[in-house]
Formats: sequence, structure tokens, C-alpha cells
Amino acid sequence: MKARPIYFFDEGDPSDRRLLGGKGAGLCEMTKMGLPVPPGFVITTEACRSYYASGQKLPHGLMAGVRKSMARLEERTGKTWGSRNNPLLISVRSGAAISMPGMMDTILNVGLNDSSVEGLAISSGSRRFAWDSYRRLVQLFGKVVFGVDDSLFEAALEEAKRASKVELDSQLDDIALRRLVARYKDIFSRHAGRAFPADATEQLELAIDAVFRSWRGERAVVYREKNGITDEVADGTAINVVTMVFGNRGPGSATGVVFTRNPGTGERRIFGEYLANAQGEDVVAGSRTPKPISELRKEMPKMHARLEETCKLLEAHFREPQDIEFTIESGSFYLLQTRGAKMNAAAMVKTSVDMVSEGMFDRKRAIMRLGADQLEQLLHPTISAAAARGARQLAAGIAASPGAATGVAVLDVGRAVSAAKAGKPVILVREETRPEDVPAFFSSVGILTSKGGKTSHAAVVARGMGKPCIVGASSMRIDPAARVCISGEARIREGDTITIDGNSGAVYAGPVETIAPRVTRDFKTILGWARSFKALGVRANADTPEAARAAREGGAEGIGLCRTERMFNERDRIGLFVDMIMAENEARRREILAKLEVLQRNDFVKILRAMDGRPVTIRLLDPPLHEFLPNPAEFGERMARLRKIKAKRKMEAERALQRRAADLAEVNPMMGHRGVRVGVTFPEIYEMQIRAVFEAAIALSKKRVRAVAQIMVPQVGSAAELLHVRAIYDRVAAEAEAKHKARPRISFGTMIEVVRAALTSGELARTAEFFSFGTNDLTQATFSFSREDAESKFLPEYIEKGLVSASPFQSIDEAGVGELMATSARAGRAARKGLEVGICGEHGGDPSSIMFCHGAGLDYVSASPHRIPIALVAAAQAALAGDSAPGGAPRRKKRGAARR
Amino acid sequence: MKARPIYFFDEGDPSDRRLLGGKGAGLCEMTKMGLPVPPGFVITTEACRSYYASGQKLPHGLMAGVRKSMARLEERTGKTWGSRNNPLLISVRSGAAISMPGMMDTILNVGLNDSSVEGLAISSGSRRFAWDSYRRLVQLFGKVVFGVDDSLFEAALEEAKRASKVELDSQLDDIALRRLVARYKDIFSRHAGRAFPADATEQLELAIDAVFRSWRGERAVVYREKNGITDEVADGTAINVVTMVFGNRGPGSATGVVFTRNPGTGERRIFGEYLANAQGEDVVAGSRTPKPISELRKEMPKMHARLEETCKLLEAHFREPQDIEFTIESGSFYLLQTRGAKMNAAAMVKTSVDMVSEGMFDRKRAIMRLGADQLEQLLHPTISAAAARGARQLAAGIAASPGAATGVAVLDVGRAVSAAKAGKPVILVREETRPEDVPAFFSSVGILTSKGGKTSHAAVVARGMGKPCIVGASSMRIDPAARVCISGEARIREGDTITIDGNSGAVYAGPVETIAPRVTRDFKTILGWARSFKALGVRANADTPEAARAAREGGAEGIGLCRTERMFNERDRIGLFVDMIMAENEARRREILAKLEVLQRNDFVKILRAMDGRPVTIRLLDPPLHEFLPNPAEFGERMARLRKIKAKRKMEAERALQRRAADLAEVNPMMGHRGVRVGVTFPEIYEMQIRAVFEAAIALSKKRVRAVAQIMVPQVGSAAELLHVRAIYDRVAAEAEAKHKARPRISFGTMIEVVRAALTSGELARTAEFFSFGTNDLTQATFSFSREDAESKFLPEYIEKGLVSASPFQSIDEAGVGELMATSARAGRAARKGLEVGICGEHGGDPSSIMFCHGAGLDYVSASPHRIPIALVAAAQAALAGDSAPGGAPRRKKRGAARR
Repeated sequence: MKARPIYFFDEGDPSDRRLLGGKGAGLCEMTKMGLPVPPGFVITTEACRSYYASGQKLPHGLMAGVRKSMARLEERTGKTWGSRNNPLLISVRSGAAISMPGMMDTILNVGLNDSSVEGLAISSGSRRFAWDSYRRLVQLFGKVVFGVDDSLFEAALEEAKRASKVELDSQLDDIALRRLVARYKDIFSRHAGRAFPADATEQLELAIDAVFRSWRGERAVVYREKNGITDEVADGTAINVVTMVFGNRGPGSATGVVFTRNPGTGERRIFGEYLANAQGEDVVAGSRTPKPISELRKEMPKMHARLEETCKLLEAHFREPQDIEFTIESGSFYLLQTRGAKMNAAAMVKTSVDMVSEGMFDRKRAIMRLGADQLEQLLHPTISAAAARGARQLAAGIAASPGAATGVAVLDVGRAVSAAKAGKPVILVREETRPEDVPAFFSSVGILTSKGGKTSHAAVVARGMGKPCIVGASSMRIDPAARVCISGEARIREGDTITIDGNSGAVYAGPVETIAPRVTRDFKTILGWARSFKALGVRANADTPEAARAAREGGAEGIGLCRTERMFNERDRIGLFVDMIMAENEARRREILAKLEVLQRNDFVKILRAMDGRPVTIRLLDPPLHEFLPNPAEFGERMARLRKIKAKRKMEAERALQRRAADLAEVNPMMGHRGVRVGVTFPEIYEMQIRAVFEAAIALSKKRVRAVAQIMVPQVGSAAELLHVRAIYDRVAAEAEAKHKARPRISFGTMIEVVRAALTSGELARTAEFFSFGTNDLTQATFSFSREDAESKFLPEYIEKGLVSASPFQSIDEAGVGELMATSARAGRAARKGLEVGICGEHGGDPSSIMFCHGAGLDYVSASPHRIPIALVAAAQAALAGDSAPGGAPRRKKRGAARR
Repeated sequence: MKARPIYFFDEGDPSDRRLLGGKGAGLCEMTKMGLPVPPGFVITTEACRSYYASGQKLPHGLMAGVRKSMARLEERTGKTWGSRNNPLLISVRSGAAISMPGMMDTILNVGLNDSSVEGLAISSGSRRFAWDSYRRLVQLFGKVVFGVDDSLFEAALEEAKRASKVELDSQLDDIALRRLVARYKDIFSRHAGRAFPADATEQLELAIDAVFRSWRGERAVVYREKNGITDEVADGTAINVVTMVFGNRGPGSATGVVFTRNPGTGERRIFGEYLANAQGEDVVAGSRTPKPISELRKEMPKMHARLEETCKLLEAHFREPQDIEFTIESGSFYLLQTRGAKMNAAAMVKTSVDMVSEGMFDRKRAIMRLGADQLEQLLHPTISAAAARGARQLAAGIAASPGAATGVAVLDVGRAVSAAKAGKPVILVREETRPEDVPAFFSSVGILTSKGGKTSHAAVVARGMGKPCIVGASSMRIDPAARVCISGEARIREGDTITIDGNSGAVYAGPVETIAPRVTRDFKTILGWARSFKALGVRANADTPEAARAAREGGAEGIGLCRTERMFNERDRIGLFVDMIMAENEARRREILAKLEVLQRNDFVKILRAMDGRPVTIRLLDPPLHEFLPNPAEFGERMARLRKIKAKRKMEAERALQRRAADLAEVNPMMGHRGVRVGVTFPEIYEMQIRAVFEAAIALSKKRVRAVAQIMVPQVGSAAELLHVRAIYDRVAAEAEAKHKARPRISFGTMIEVVRAALTSGELARTAEFFSFGTNDLTQATFSFSREDAESKFLPEYIEKGLVSASPFQSIDEAGVGELMATSARAGRAARKGLEVGICGEHGGDPSSIMFCHGAGLDYVSASPHRIPIALVAAAQAALAGDSAPGGAPRRKKRGAARR
């Protein structure tokens, strides 16, 4: 059925936010609940789409419908539209499916003209109030509908105050205001090219056109781009035509905004502020300071009680904390808006737990309502509300990458690098950043820019690096020559200490106390619930015994990726490892490898012990050997120092290293001599590592410690490679068995990170007992994007131009990489029943990727230890989304769950 | 039906070479034709496989069958096995499905013992002959079956000659030989650990065991590895048991080898050599020099006529030139072997054309019998037979990469590079090569090694570079310290000029005249036939007007890849191009691009004109910009020179270049900021190129010259990228139309060289009118192999260890890359009817890849101009193989052919 273009608030279907807009849907819902909403109607987003489809013309018949609706509104309110006799006044408010605060236009007091203003004077009992309302209409209407420069009106207002010899707007009397209206109309007609429309319906028609037009206004378009709001989510704005109510009708009037629970803490108590005898505008104008809502209890105890009761009703109805606008007009209570409250992560977690215990909803909904991404806030340092209140805020921008950081402001890339080298924590402050600034990102603890949105270069790179970042702090003007940055009254000189809050977008002077992230009791409760719902296993990437212990404490169910090369980079071993690379022949290489084996075995013992029977996937050496070589001069020094030999030997060592480095140098190291390719050409390295795993497992089993090790081969592209390593594994296993009369069960598997491995997975699964998707490299190979190069050269521009919707290194590219993963998992399992399939790329900690992995039937995800909680919640959400998928068919069979 | 283990020559099915071996099948065929083959039988390769399957034991029942067969042989020959009375003697000859000359063992005169030797003396009428045959049996049997050191027998022979006071073996009389046999038996029993077996059947059993054993002898295994003979092609050897005939029974006896046509030229005349009154062994021993076969006409005119007649019969029967062994025993003519003659490419081409005109076979077979790869010989410089005869051969090895080259021998990598820099043509001579030697390959005109096979590092790298190469010239001993290389009597000092023939494996002293490659009349005939059969289009990769003209003359049906960046590297433009890269802003960049546009348009005009209406696929800029930057010092010089400015400006220019180079530098340039990614970030570059194509096409159309241009976008990974360039194309097309009132039909398509493009081809085909597979990059991405790094670091070892059967950069990897291609073509055509699909990677000139492309239903291949003839033949073979595929169903519909 085709939607009508207009719905009265008691007619619209509140569940259709896409049609009615968020605000409209809320007004309809509240009206249906019997709450006191001023009468009115919604013009739908569909009408807005027609408006654009027909070349920015109001759709045929719309105004006829509007006229009819206004007649109905007259009936309901008992007031008369555009008349002197108890005039009906309305506000015309935009409202898209997604809230875009302040981005589109709203016009108040529509319906006033020279005649109805007198009616308003009578019905309100205040001439001053009536003429002031009229003045405001002419100004706002001129500005919004005809683009008349606001400063012209402001100048006239100043002049009027001078003439009346008063200082404040509110001191102008009705006579002065009446004269000012005449002056305003004059300005209007001179700059709008027509007289101010006296006809109320003409006012309304022009206002509707202006609101529709504002949907594609520059501000709104930029906002949607910056916030990734696509046409699928919100296409066009609805318009709410609402009978005016006034919070400034005297002592019994007020207006305010309230949250049903504290959006910063989740505390169950209404939270907000109000102004007595005022309009919402007055808050914006700064002429009045709002009071906390608790004051209302003293000032208007009945109204406060009414408000509290309403909040409870709305929460019980929506089963979500609400964010409400209300107006009290001469003792009558009105609701002008309700919407789901935007809360920070801590508040979301607390309200989830509380509302379950209050019986508002069940644990499933408690999990589903959380933004898994938002939970990241809880895992970074944050600035407490108290500390923020005490700090001096210098500017505000868009919160682009979470976490808080304190450091010295540096306005130049080169100086940022040198300041960091000098040991200073640096906050890089730039108008915007460019690829050549990336080195400075590495040197900085946080990034602040005055331009750009959530997908700007700075935002994308900072998020990729996990560094706090604020972008688009547009009040700031940066003067690099003077090394200063000016924001309103404040100035930040280069070298000043500042603090940025990547969660809120606030920039503060000096250091501000931050709260270290910690898992609260409520969060623990949530994680417990998540664990009970999820199907996917959640493991951690950890390379050291310490990291393994931390991962286990964080709730990891195993280690999905233990990178053995990280162990070689430890201080006590890198020397040995370099000697191994420099060895003249295999015999010498084996000699050194024997020493490394002892160290590596000890690491494995500790890691396996820490995981106490949970699986540990140990990846054999992956990077190319040249990555381990120091610069030749350092190496020579070390040789000289360690072996107390002469300068000549030192130079020889340098030369040898240079030669070896030249031998090993590669054009494209990402796709070069690494992973299993090293295992094929220097089989003794893999042999050593495999033996170390066997020996570690045997040592633990002798001590009756449970140890479950898995050996994983990286960069495999063909079954032949895997068989080659398997032969080494078999030989080592046989030798270990002969020696110790014990055969630990150590499974043998492969990374799937080479495209060819994904394409030939059926064959690989004949040898591999498990697969683990290395989605970092798989993404690089699928796109032919070298990640480092892409992120510094062109990926930010790709995102900004909309060529990709998000970085494929952050969320799995389902059409390409995801397709390969699904094909691979399917073929692998067809070839080997019970093949274990997981993911250990960075995507393993990304909620939307976890959703994909669940759907693709993976057994587990492995994430960075600090993202384990996010992964747990995302895994639970994926499972619950599958359970409640429309049509009933879950995307995935619960095989993972069944197996455990 | 299970095969029997033994077939008499008149029983075996000659078409089953895999079962009977090549030699056995030939003997069976000739017997069935009624030709004079000595009676005998074949023990099958199946028996050999059973032998190995049961742990090197003769299969159960085999010897019973052999005994029965010997009884039948007695009947047929009227001779008696192992008896003094007209004894039956036999040879035991190996013979696998694939000829492996000299690699396995053969034993003659089996059946002689103290008793039968007397019978032989009577039947042959020569005691000396009988005892000499016996002596030879003991020696060969001792050596082959029991591994008795040959030199022990040789020493005894020398002693016998001393005792008899004679110089030649042939001067020993029967008494001395009888004594020598006793001595030989003594040696035998001492070193074999048992007495020489007197029982004929025991001799035969041991001989059979020895021949089977030799299949896995080291020599044979290495040969098969070096020549890529897998178990699929030949698994096990058959054994031929043949009644002995003797070419040394007096003046009416002879033995020889003959080709039915000249294997070097294809000339239709028998070609070969023979020895009168001798055995084949005598040739090997070097004691006699064979005479050309033409002499036989004078010496034994009847036998010569018989031979010619037999050759005709065999050719008529096999419909292929044959390579024949014959023996004349006292005026009786016997055939001992026939097989298809191995000929060089020129002879193959000539015989193909000749035999069609002789009515021997049709044009299809004429095409199918050619080795498309072998034709490469005709496209490289070659050494004429005459020149080779006149030259002094120093050594011989395995022909690993075709073509002939003359240069100075250099034994050291560093010196090779410096000699090349000094302008000398270098032949690199090494024991074997290693990755670090690759720079010297670039500096050399040819490579010669004393070790390694066809898949050794040297062979793989040289073939990849298209340089002549000989490997495994094992007679050579290289002494790098003395800078000399010794081969038998010959010495090659470093700096000596040598010539290598990569077609034959011969190494010659000094320069040897080479013949430039040219397409002969016969070859042209073949290419004409090929054109009539093929379904695939054959285009050329060409970047300049000259190359385009050459490609068209060579028979190219279009240009499948015209790389525009090559044009920027020309002397007169690289400066401008660098200026463009260095431009401070878009305006300056556009200014320079306008100049480049003029040059590029002129190139396009010339290329399109040269192709006269045939399609020309123009690829937009592909490499990363940094590839074009000169080294900063050079750039500064150029700036200084060109603009006559001061040293300070020169340094500024250098510094600017350094900065820009640092900006643009990449970690993995293969997967970096290149192709369409440059087109997205610097759209003005692509805009310029697209406009140049449009303007060129319009200019030609005004002159009524037919021009068919296709614009191709490189490195595309998503539909969004392609749409981005398409928008530029549409704008440029509209502008051109507005300006010239003409709209040339220029199609718009994409490379498929990024994995993601192959995976999302359905979407791409909505925008692309054609696909062209860039299999070089697609192979790199599918394997995660950077080609340069892989070929210099690990790919040769992969090939040697059997991890890949051939370099995936030479022949398409069907399981991985081929799978992606097939998926892509399928999805593309499903989305767009009539989508043109081709290939422009180097694989487009590789016969097995062309076969794959035909099967995958591609429309055309595009190859390097010099490989066009190979591509034509391979395309024809692919089409013909499809036509005659068993089961009748061609792998591909003839869509390409239908379209033209």
C-alpha cells in the first residue's frame, strides 16, 4: 500500500521511522500512548523524495492535503489558522530517520501576521510577547527561507535598543518591538525580493519547501558524509507541523530537556536541565543559564512529579532510556520529543544490567542493544566527568578515534618526530593531515585536526594505529608560522600541554586526569551473558608468557596466534638469530639453531602452561629473514664489543652483513621470501621450531600439566608446500617418540592468507587439521593493496571519495575476501570432517567482521587481548541476530557450540 | 581386462606404448606388418610396476611365463635354448614408454655357456666369433647384473693381448679367447660372490631383474628428473627378449641406423650410417668409423634398396618419419627398432608441409604433430649444420633455453657485470648459479653451467629472460682460481670467445656463424593453416608505432596491450613527465599534461593507423609514479643544463626531487599506489590520456582511416574504481562530441589482474565492455609471489624440489589462477552478453596456457610480437584438440570463431 503524504500524530505507525522520521515517529508514539503532545501532523520523507524527484517542487496535491490538515488542526485545537481570533500558531520542524542535530532547519511561530499577532496578544495576555514572537518569525523566516543575512536583522535590533536606550532584548517594550517588526519587514522585502508573506498558508508552504531544501543543504550533506549516513539509512527528511506551545508564558511556564537515566553513568535517576519562563532558543542565545532538573522539584513540585512519571511511562513503553524535550505552558505539561538516549559505553553497560534486573527486557536484548564498537571506550583511558568539569575546554571537534591522551602540542611534522625522539609525548595538531605526515603519527600519542570528518586521512590512520584522535575542531585556527593555534578566546602555543578526549571530541588545556580502563562488575556481568549466547570461540593473539596470562585473565579461550618471530626479536636472542642468518653453511646454522631451540622451548613451556589445557596455535617463522638484520654499523659495534676484537674484524663483520643484506633484499617483501618459503629453502629453521614445540609439550606432560599445542604454517599457497613441512613434522614427531616414548597430540594446520590457499582449500585440508584465516595478508593480496602503502597513499582518499565504504583492513570485505573465506571453509570441511576453522587477522576483533565469521560458520575468532571483551559481545550479538533472523532461519548452524 | 605380463611381437597391441614400452610397441607393429623382425617377446611395464610393488621381487608366475615363452621361441626359430645343438641366443633390452637413450641396461648374447658356445661355433662357422661372444657376455653380465668393476675385465683383456703379443682385441684367436673366458669367470666369481650362471634360464632371470632394477638406477632417475618425465608419462620399463642376429658374421653382414628423412632439414631422403661386418657395440667402442648410408648403395645395392623400401613402408604405415635400427646377417635383413624420428623445428615444419602434399596426412595432423614450444627454435638465432661441422666443439650439455650466442667466457659474477659494462658480450660460465648471480644474467648474452638440469636455477632464470642457456655440461671442470675451464683436451680460458647453442647443447670454440631467425615459406604455409583452424584471436603486445607495424606484419590481428607508460619513458618526454610529477599543484600538473597530451595523441594516431581498423587496446598509466623519477643528482644536472641556472638552483632541484621521491617511496610497489589508484588520486592524468585517445580517433576518422581503439583501466579491484574512470571517460567523450560533432566508438574495459576483480567480475561487467586478463600480476597476487623476488630467491628451488611443476609465470597455474580466470569470464559474460574476454599477460604466448585459454572460452590471446607464430600454432592445436577430444564434446563452444 502506498503511504499517504501526511499523517496526524494519532494516525502514523510509530515503527515506520524511515517514513515518518525519528522525531515524527516519537510524536506519533507518544500521542498513541495518550501523553500530552501538542496536536500536529507529519509530512513524510516520501514526500521529500518526491520533492527531489520532481526537481525540487512540492509534490502534486501536497498543499491541498496540508490545507485540509490545517483545517483539522483548527478543529482539534479550537484555534483559528492565520486569524486574529484565537490564532493557531505552529512550528515547522525537520526530522529525518537518523537524528542530525542542528543540521536542518526549523521555523517557529508560523501563522503570525499583522492580524493574528493581535490575537496572540489577547490570548497570551501579553502584547510584548506577541510582538516579540512576530519579530522572531520574520527574522528566522527571512534567514531560513530566503537566505537573508542575519546580521542585517541583528543590526536593526541593536539600533532599536540604542533608540530605546536599553541594553537587553527583553527590555524592549511592545511599542519598540512593533516598530522593529516594521523595520524587519523592510529588510526582508529589500533582500528577499518580495514582501513578507502575510498569508499563513503561504508562510507554511514556503517553510515546507525550505525544510525539504535543507536536506541537501551543504551543512547537512557534509554531516551525512562525515558520519557515514547513506541513503539506505535515511533518504529525505520528514516535516513535523506542531501546534506551538510556549514555555515563556510567565512563572508557571518552563522548558527543558531530560534523560530518563544519566547518560554518562547509567544511574537510574532523571538527568537534565530546564529554564523557567523561557523558550529553548534562550538557552542557545546564552542569555539565560539552565538549571539542573532537580531544581524543578522545588520550583514546580507537581510538574517535576509529572515529569518523573512520564519518564517512567516512556521507559516502560520503549524499554530503552529516553531523551525527552518538554514544555510547561502556564501549568500545562507538553512533550515535544522523545528518542532513545545516546549514552556512553559505561552507561549502556550499566543500564543493560539494571534494566534486566528491573524486568524491562531480557539478557538477549541487553546484549543486542550494546554497540560492540562503542565498548572500545571502556578499554581505553578515559576522562572522568568530574575531571572534565574541572578542566578548561579549549575546543571541541569530532571524536574520531577513542581514548584520551595528554601531550605537548606540536604543529609541524618534523618537529613532532624530533620532540618524540627527545622523549616528549606529542599531540600532533594540524589543519588536516596528508600521507607524508604518517611518520609523525607514529611519533605522537594523539592527533587533533581542525578540518575533516570521521573518514578523513587523520581519522582513518589514527584509528588504524589505535591512537586517540579528534578531527574537525572547526573553531580552531592554526597559524603554523606563528606556531600558535587560536580557538575563540583560547590560544594553544606550540609546546603547551593539552589533553584530547577521543571519546567526546573535547580538547582541554593542560593535563587532565584520565581513568585507566577496567572491566567493571556490570561489564563482567555482560561478558558472562555474552559467553552464554555466543557460538564462536574467542581466542587471543599472544606471543609471550605474560601476554598469554593476560589473555587468559581477559577471558580468552585459547591463543589463536602465537607469533614465534616476536620471540627472536627479544634482546637476548636477536644476536643469535642474526648469527644464524649470517651462518656460512647449514652445519653452522644448525649449531646456532640448537641454541635458539632451548630458548624457544622454554617460551613454549611457559605459554602452554599459562593456558593450562586451552589450545595454543603456534605459527612457524613468518617474516623474511632480512627483517631481522640490524643496520650494519650497529652489528659491527656489537661484534666488536661482544667479542673484544679489533677494528678490522668489526669492518669485516659490517661488510659481511652488508653483503648478506644485499643478498636478502627484496623488491616487494610482503610477497617475497618469507613464511613457508623460508621453511622450504631453510628447512632446518622449521625443524628446530617444530622440535621445540614437541619437546615443550612432552616436558609439560611429564609434569602432568595439560598442554594443547597446534603448529601452524604461514604463507602456504599449495598442498605441496604443506606436505613438505608435514614431512619435517612427521620426522620430528617420530624422533621425539623414539627419544621420550611419548607422542603428544600436536595438531598440524595452515594459515589461509594466500589467495591460492583459499582456492585450493580442499586439497590443503587433506594435510591440514585446522585452518586459520590470516585476513590481513589475504586482504592485501585480494585487493593488491600493500597495507602500509595503501593507508599512507590512497586509502583515505578512497574512503573520502566513497570508493570503499570502510577500510578493508578494519572490516572484512565481504564481496571479495569474505567470498574467498566462505569458499575455503566450505571446501576444507568437505574434504575433512571436523576441520577446525578460525581467524587470526586483526579482523578477529572487529564486530562487523565477527558477525561475518559467525555467518560463515567459523569455529572461533582470535583477537588482540584488549579486544577480547568486544569480541565476546560481538560474537554473542552475531549468534542472537542469527537466532532472531527474520524468516527464522539462522545463517549458521550452531556447530561451534555443539562441538564444545 | 588385466594385461598379460608377456606378449609375443605378433600378439601385443602396438598402440599401447605405456604397457609395452616404445621399443616393444615398435617391434610388435613391425612384426604385424610382416617386416623381418627377429622373433621375440615383451615383458610389460606392468610387470615392472609389480616388481617394485612387491619390494623388487619378480612378480609371482612371471618366470613360469618366461620359460613357456622361451619354449615357443625355440619352436619359432628352430633353435634350442641353452643347448649345444644350434643354440638359441637372445638379447635382453630395456624399453620404457618414453625413450631414455643409454639410461638403462641391455644385455646381449644371453644363453651362452660352456656347452652352447660350442654350438654357436658350429652354427656360425667361427670358433673365434663364438668365444668372443661368450667373453662379451661374461663381462657385460658381470658388470650390469652384479656390478663387477669393468676395469678388472679390461685389465685381464690387456694381459691376454700381451700374452698373445697382439695389439687389437680382434687379433686374439679362439684359443686365447677361450682362456680369457676362463679368466673372466674367475674374476666374476671372485667379485660377484657366486659362479657365473651356466644355466641359460638363470642368466635370463638375473638379466630381467637387473633391467627392472635399472629403472630406478641413479642415472635413470636423474635423467627423468632433468627431463621432466613423470610417472604419468612413463612408469616402469618393459623388457624386450629378442633372438640375437649378428651384423658381424662376415662380408655379407652389417648393422646401422637410419632416419627416413633428414632430421636436420626435413629433406626427403634416407639419412644415417652403418658399419659393415660389425656389431653396434663397435661403434660405441670407437674402434670402427661408420660410413654414411649412401655408401651402402655401392657396397650392398640390394640391401640398400631393401632398406629404402622398408623406410617407405614404415613411413606410409606410421605416417611419421622414422628412426630405424637394422642388422644384415649374412645377407638376411632384420629390423631391430623403429620409432618416430626426433627432428629439429625446421625439419618438423618441412616434413609437415611435404607430407601433406604427399598425401600422408591432412593439414590438421600437420599442425598437431608440431611442438609449439619447439618452434621457438625458428625464432632465435641458430647455428647452421654446416657452421657446426666446421666449428670445434668443446663440450656438450643440456639445451636449456633456445638460441645461439657468441661472447667471451667469464667465470665470475662480478667480472661478468664489469665486462658487460665495458661493452663486451659475456657468456657466463659457472658450475651452477645461485640467486645472487642474477645480476650477471642481465649482463650476459648466454649462460653455460657444468651442473644442473632443465629445471636448475640457471635454466629457469635464463628461460625467463629469453637468453640462450646450456646446463649440465658435465665434461667441464671449472677452476675459478686459475680462471680456466677444462673439458677433456680442451681448455676455455676466461676471456676466450666461445659460442653456445641453446638448441643443441653444444659449446664451440670461437665465434660460430649464426643464422638470423626468419619465417620460411614452409613455416608461412603452416601459419596459414593454423589461422584457418584456430578459434582464438591472436593479438600482439606493442607499445610503439614501429612495434605495431612489426606485429601486423607478423600476423597479429590487433594489439591486445599498448602500454602508454612506455611512451613516457622515451627520451623526449621523460623530462616533461618528471616535471608533471614534481608539479606543486593540479593547475601546474594540468599545464604539463596538456603538452604530454599532444605527444601521446600523435603516438596513438600512428599506432591506430598502423593497425588499420584492427582493435588496439590502450592501457592507461599503470606503474607507480616513483618509477619515473631519475636519481636526484641526474635530475639536478638536467635542470641545470636545460635551464642554464646556477648551482644553487641545481641543488634545490635535487632536494625537491629527493623530497618527492621520499613522499612517493613505497614498501611494496607491486601492490602500491599505481594503476587506477593513481587514476583516482590524480584524475587529470587519466583524463589527459583518454582525451588523447579520443582526439586521435577523431583525427583519423576525419582522414577516413579506420581506427578501433579500446581504453583499458589497469589494477581495478572494484566496480567503484571503474565507475570513477568511466565518469571521466563519459565527460571527455561528451566534450569531444561537442567540439568535433563526432563520437568515435571507443570501447571501455578493464584489466582483470587483481584477485578481487576476478571475484567481482559480474559487477565489473556492468561497466566494462571487455576484460583482459593480466596474468602476470594475477599470478603474483594469487600466489603472493613477487615475481622478481620469487625468481631470484626461491622459485628455482621450488621447481627443483618438485613443489611446483613449472614456473607459474611461464604457464598458467590452472588450479589457482586458471580457476579465477574461468570464474571471472563466466560471471562477466553472465552479466554482459557479448563481453569480449582476452589475455595480455606473458602467458598469452605460452602454448599450454593458450590451450587453457581456448578451453576457458576466451576470445583472444595477446603475445609478444616474436611469439605470434607460436601463438597461432598453439591456438590451432587447441581448437583441433577440442574438435577431436575423446567423447566428442569440445571443451569450448566456437564462440570466438562465430563472432568474427
